[in-house]
This record gives sequence, structure tokens and C-alpha cells, in this order.
Amino acid sequence: MEEIERTDEPVVYDDLVEKRTDELMELLENRNMKTLKLRMDEMQEYDVAEFLSSLQDNRMPMLFRLLSKERAAEVFANLDAPEQERIINSITDSELAGIVEELYVDDAVDMMEELPANVVKRVMRTATPETRNLINQYLHYPENSAGSIMTAEFVDLKKYMSVKDAFARIRRIGEDKETIYICFVTNAHRKLEGIVTVKDLLLADPETVIEDLMDRNIIFAVTTEDQESVSAKFSDYDLMALPVVDKEGRLVGIITVDDIIDVMEQEATEDIQLMAGMTPSDKPYLRTGTVEMWRNRIPWLLFLMLSATFTSMILTSFEDMLAVQAGLVAFIPMLMGTGGNSGAQASTAVIRSLSLGDVEPRDVLRVMWKEWRVAFLCGLTLAVINFGKMLLVDGMLLGNANVTVSVAATVSLSILFIVMFAKVVGSFLPIAAEKLGVDPAVMANPLISTLTDAVSLLIYIYVAKLILGI
Amino acid sequence: MEEIERTDEPVVYDDLVEKRTDELMELLENRNMKTLKLRMDEMQEYDVAEFLSSLQDNRMPMLFRLLSKERAAEVFANLDAPEQERIINSITDSELAGIVEELYVDDAVDMMEELPANVVKRVMRTATPETRNLINQYLHYPENSAGSIMTAEFVDLKKYMSVKDAFARIRRIGEDKETIYICFVTNAHRKLEGIVTVKDLLLADPETVIEDLMDRNIIFAVTTEDQESVSAKFSDYDLMALPVVDKEGRLVGIITVDDIIDVMEQEATEDIQLMAGMTPSDKPYLRTGTVEMWRNRIPWLLFLMLSATFTSMILTSFEDMLAVQAGLVAFIPMLMGTGGNSGAQASTAVIRSLSLGDVEPRDVLRVMWKEWRVAFLCGLTLAVINFGKMLLVDGMLLGNANVTVSVAATVSLSILFIVMFAKVVGSFLPIAAEKLGVDPAVMANPLISTLTDAVSLLIYIYVAKLILGI
Repeated sequence: MEEIERTDEPVVYDDLVEKRTDELMELLENRNMKTLKLRMDEMQEYDVAEFLSSLQDNRMPMLFRLLSKERAAEVFANLDAPEQERIINSITDSELAGIVEELYVDDAVDMMEELPANVVKRVMRTATPETRNLINQYLHYPENSAGSIMTAEFVDLKKYMSVKDAFARIRRIGEDKETIYICFVTNAHRKLEGIVTVKDLLLADPETVIEDLMDRNIIFAVTTEDQESVSAKFSDYDLMALPVVDKEGRLVGIITVDDIIDVMEQEATEDIQLMAGMTPSDKPYLRTGTVEMWRNRIPWLLFLMLSATFTSMILTSFEDMLAVQAGLVAFIPMLMGTGGNSGAQASTAVIRSLSLGDVEPRDVLRVMWKEWRVAFLCGLTLAVINFGKMLLVDGMLLGNANVTVSVAATVSLSILFIVMFAKVVGSFLPIAAEKLGVDPAVMANPLISTLTDAVSLLIYIYVAKLILGI
Repeated sequence: MEEIERTDEPVVYDDLVEKRTDELMELLENRNMKTLKLRMDEMQEYDVAEFLSSLQDNRMPMLFRLLSKERAAEVFANLDAPEQERIINSITDSELAGIVEELYVDDAVDMMEELPANVVKRVMRTATPETRNLINQYLHYPENSAGSIMTAEFVDLKKYMSVKDAFARIRRIGEDKETIYICFVTNAHRKLEGIVTVKDLLLADPETVIEDLMDRNIIFAVTTEDQESVSAKFSDYDLMALPVVDKEGRLVGIITVDDIIDVMEQEATEDIQLMAGMTPSDKPYLRTGTVEMWRNRIPWLLFLMLSATFTSMILTSFEDMLAVQAGLVAFIPMLMGTGGNSGAQASTAVIRSLSLGDVEPRDVLRVMWKEWRVAFLCGLTLAVINFGKMLLVDGMLLGNANVTVSVAATVSLSILFIVMFAKVVGSFLPIAAEKLGVDPAVMANPLISTLTDAVSLLIYIYVAKLILGI
């Protein structure tokens, strides 16, 4: 922070980080390892991890080994799987054991889930039996469940302790806990009886008994609960940590808010990927291989391409009819596009509201009624503007003789119906999916577009029959 | 938590909340106000707010007035703007003043930004001059900046204090602070010199001087910094609170992690809405009026509908050519759909990676090269399968005499080119937008689809000319 005082320029944190990284690079090039080690010890673990990741050669594991044991574990937890693997492959068994013991269980489990099997084996072999058991137990919780993201390092107290006793215990065992600020009061059977914060403890008299101080009205999660529901609790109740209990109500772990931030990013990414018709993956873009990307993307593309067979069949069977009135074909892409976009707006709005908890499946009728009205307004606006535009631009300006008043009316009336169909169906499908236990995000743009493509075409054909009498 | 011990069934937190809400409803119907007040005092503020919001009549403000002053402010901060307005309109000036003084500044500012002008005036009139100044100052920071989401209630220490002094200060002023666990060490000019956590203080000797304990390597934000960059810091460094400094490096506020969770939800929602061609709005779905929704959705629909004029023009000018080889028209929607979906996958993946910081604008060539390879694989797969499918299903099974080997080859080769075009352009546009300072999320599905629609058609027409010689 001294930089802030030395200069009159506004200081931005990222500039400081960049300056420091440049300095590290210089030290590295001058092989000034002693100063380098000193600098790395002062820096944030995340920044050290970023710096190490930027070194693509074997200087990376070398510098890593300069770090002190405890810091090494913290930096290690901040690295991505490929870098973790490179480091594991270049350190001794005892160094590896040291890091694994220092890691929080949730970070160790995260790592195990990403590493290749042979590396996992080596890590497990070097870990102590207790750590090995703990990791194994955590690996057995379903993916994305509260159990799989919790950690075992929390402070537990008993209700008969005094505030003074509690502080003594926190001082004794607090060093390695993920949080010491929320303490969990358990009985002899490890059942959770209350929660007390360090703030409560600090503001209370040292002789007060925990029982008189603790909050019995506890927000908790069960091990099998989905991480999306867990993160909703953090957001609703502004939590710092959430206890996780097993089916019998025994406290087995806690989830801290920093892990929830990762969960929220991951869940939003997953939704966004699903919405664009991709298999979700939490691998960073540049780390994902070409074949893996192909595998994530091809299923939906294939499914949607084949589904378009229906649209082709409709077009084929009405080809003669459409040919009678020249010019009708030219507006098919616009109608399909408008239908797709209208449906995507509705489905996206509903999908996001479902995942934020703003909309529940029981609101289905309110949602569809709202979409019906919005669709009417949108459809009407588009129809009126399109009618004028077709006559003025396509007809007069571009001199397209096919564009008569009846053709313009046919296209415009179709727009109104198509938008209304697309928005009502687009809002209904995600809610139906949620009810059926399917991820609503699947019902987004690609699927809705393909569905509305076929229906838009049918609407257009029947409106044309009606107005143009063909 | 007693419920957990009484039963053998696994207990889920939401069931407990539901049971408690039913009980409150019963108490309300029996007009047992005393027990009702007791129950509401025990509950989480968020649950009380949810319960009050569920009452649509004037019992809501009535029950709100049962709450104690401090709790009232906490529950109030958890209510949505329409409920806050109803309550403000039904309480006295002095009750209102009491609530405003109890609110954290950031919550008060959030409220002011949502309420109608006349209600804001009344709130400002009843507030003390200090609070009024503070709120006014905060309202002047740009929307979505660090300044607009920070709060002024933090614990500040001096570096010459001992750990004992620090605890005494925390005990004296800590009650009303958003967090006491991170303390900020400032000098006489309010410049930030270091950070010390309550954990550090608890684990240290009471006589240690803060200067020897504090971390000088501080992560901070400046008041004008965008909230997206602030939330990236929380996620990178696993922070609980972040100090905010002004241009001169003076500490003016802090941001706590619970506010960042809201920011992250809001930013993801905004991206998702933009990606579906909607004007972002952070109003909950069911709270947004029909006309407002129409206003959020119509601009893109209109723009995209009008852009489709180009596709119509292309179709019109090649209508005769397409008519020569019967059956070609039937595959246009499928080609456009496949182009749109392929482009959407690429653009969505890149947009999300940009906002997570996994991809930087300088990676543009790496990204396009990756998409080029993925597109080649996807395009080839789709082309081969489509070739077989057209001959077997459309040709033999459906007996469409128009589907010859050359027609199938035309459509399949077009698919390959279209997918490659869509994916490369889809990955380039968001990065270009970021470079130009436009939100990359705008370059998502709707825009890409409209663009690829026109290009897909041109590709199809030229491939047809080449293969079919028409």
C-alpha cells in the first residue's frame, strides 16, 4: 500500500499486481532466488499461483518448491489441475504428503476429481490413513451435493462452556479451520444444537455460558442437498458459513461463503452453456481440447439438424402452394427468426427466474398470462411496423412487384400469431421441464427455435390460405 | 433444531420454514399477536420478510409494526421495493426515521434507488443530517460502481494500538458494523495502511502492537471501479470484505461478501438477458409490468426483424434459380438453424469466458483457431450424417424424388461451410465488442443468427451453382 502514498495518481489494484509480476520476472531472470522467495511470501496466494501458471517451463515446479510448507498448500489450492499435476509429478512423496495434509479437505477433493487416475493413486498412497479416509468419504457424496463441497475443518463448542472456555478452544484449534467466526455447538451425539458467532462471544461477558448465547434457530443443509439450493440459502440469508448435517441430524461439515462464490459462477456458466445447446463443462475455454469441445457441442447440433426434417417436410408438401403466390418464400426466414427470438426471450426470462427462485412452478398460469399479454403487444407492434415496411421498402423502394397489400397483410398477421405462439410456449416449456425434474435451461433458444420454426411455417401457410385464398 | 432430534425422518430446512409459516398464519387468524411477535423475533429476518410479503392486505404493515426497532430495519432491508413503499406509507415519520438510522448505508441507498421520488423525499426529510449527507454522497457514485455498493460501517484501528486496545475498540463500536472480523488500519489522513483480522488478533498475544500484526499487502478497490471487477476480486482471492479507497487512497467504505453474492447474481442475470436480446432489468419477473416487459423486448425483436430484410432480398433475387432445382428451398430453414445454433455455441462460450476472465481480448487468434478446428469437426460430422440421412430418409423413406445425390451433396457441403463461418464469426464478434467497449453479451444468439441467416443462404446458393451447375 506504500505505493498509494508515494504517488498522486489514482492507484488501481491490478496495476500493482502487474508491477509486482514484472519485478518477479526480473528477479527470476537475474536468478535472485532469495529475494524472489521473499517477494512470493509477501504476495497473495492467488497472485503467486497466477505467476507460477504463467511460467510454461520447468521453472514453475522449481519456484513452487521455494515456498514454505503451509504457503505451498495454499498456492497449490489456487492452481488449475494441469499445473497441480505437473507439480505433483516433480516433487517427492514426502513433499506431496506435506501438501495434502495441509490442504482443506474440500480443496483436496476438488483436486482429486480433476486429476488423472495414476496421479490420484500416488496422492492417496502418500496421505495419512485419516486423510485418506476423509477424502474417500467426501468423494462418495453425489457430485454437486452439499456433501461434495463441504469441508471438515470447523470449530465445535459445547453448550456448557463459558465464553472464556470458548475463546481458549478457538485459540487452541482455530489456526487450521476454514472459519473461526462461526462456531457450531454440538451435543455428545454430534447433533447440532446451536450456532454462536465470534461477534456474540466478543460482545458478551467472559463468564456467560454458551447455551445462553447461542442461536438455536439454525439454517442448515443436508449432505445430499443440491449445491444450487445451498447457494440460494447463502444469498437469501446473507450467510458466511452453513452447517451440513447427515440424515440423522449429525454435524458432518460446513460450507463457507468463498466456496459458494465458485458454485454460483459454476451454476451460472452451466445454465448459460445449456441454454446455448452445449453440454456443460467447468473447464476454462482455453484449457478445453478441440475434441472435447466437439463432443460438448455436436449432440445438440445433430439433434436440432435432424429435427429440422419436419420443417423440410412441411416446406416440401406445400412447395406448390407457396410457388403459386410468388414472393411468399422470401419472408419465411424473417418469420422463423422472429418466432425464434420471441420464444428465446420468454424462455430465457423464465429459466433465469426459476433458477433465482423468483418464479415457482406453481406460478405457471400467471407466467403464461403475462407472456400472452406481452406477446400480444410485441406481436402487434412488429406486425404494424412490418406491414408499413413491406409496402414502403420492399414494395415501393425495392420495387418488388410480388409485395401486394394482401401479401403484406398475410406476413404481418402471421407475425402476430407466431410471436404469441412462441412466447406462450417459450414460457411454458421451462416450467414444465422443472416440474418433470429436467433442467429448465435445456428449454432455451435452440430447442424453442426449432419448434417454432415448424409451427411458424404452418401458421404462415394457413394465414396465406385464408387471406390469399390459395 | 429440536425438530431434528424428535423425529427419525431426514429433516430439510425448507420444510421447517414452511411449518413455521403455517404456524404464523394460524396465530394470525386467531389474532394471537403476542405469540406471533415472539415467533417473529426468533425467526431469520429473511423468513419474516418472506412471510410479510405473502400477506397482500393491510395486515402486512400492521405486523411489521410489531417488530422491535432494530429487527424492523433488518426485516425492512430484506423486503422488495413495493413492500417497502407500502410500509413507509403506513408508518409515522418518527418510526421511519428510526428505521432509516438503523439501516446500513448500502441498504438505504439500494432502497432509495428503487422508490418513487415522493417517497424518497419523505425518507430524506425524516433522516438525520448526517445520514442524509451519507446517502446523498453514495447516490452520486456511478451505478454499479464499487462506491455505489459499499457501506460506511466498518471497524477502523490505528497501527500503534495493542491487540487489547483493538478488542476494546471492537467491543465498543462493533455492534452496528457490517463486519467486525476484518479491521482496517488507517493513518491520520484516513489512508489505508493495513488489514488485520479478528483471527490474527485472537491468536496473538494481547500486548502485540497492531503494526506488527497487520497485513500491508492489501487488496482494494477504488470507488469508481465496476462491480464486475470487484466481484472478480472476491472470487479470485476468497475475500470476506474488500476496502474501497477514493482517488487519493483514503479509505471511504467496505464491500462485504454478502453484497457481492447479490452482485454476481445480478451480473449473470444481466448477461443472460442481453444474450437473449432483452434490455437487462433486475426486477423480478412477476414484479415486472406487461408494458415494461414489452419495452425491454421490442427493440431487439424489431431490429432483428428489419435486419432480416437482407435475407428476404437474397431469397427474392435468387428465387428463380432456386425454383429450377425443385426441393432446394425445403432445406433452407435447416441450414439457417444449424448456422444459428453453431454460431450461438461459439459466441456463448466466448462471452462467458470473457466475463469469467478465462479469455482476454489478446487471445483472439488462439480462440479463432480453436473454433476453426472445432467447427471443422462439427461441420464434417453434420455433413456426413446429413448426406446419409437425406438419401435414406428424405429420398428413400419419404420418397422425395427431388433429393438426388447431387442435392444431398449440395446441402451437406453447405453445412460444412456454414458451420465453419458461424463458429469463427461467432467467436470473433464478442471479443471485438469487448475491445470496442461494448458489452460482449450483445453478440449472442439473436444477432449471430440474423447474420448467419443471410450468409448461410449465400453459401447455399453458391455451392448449388457449383455442384448443380444452375
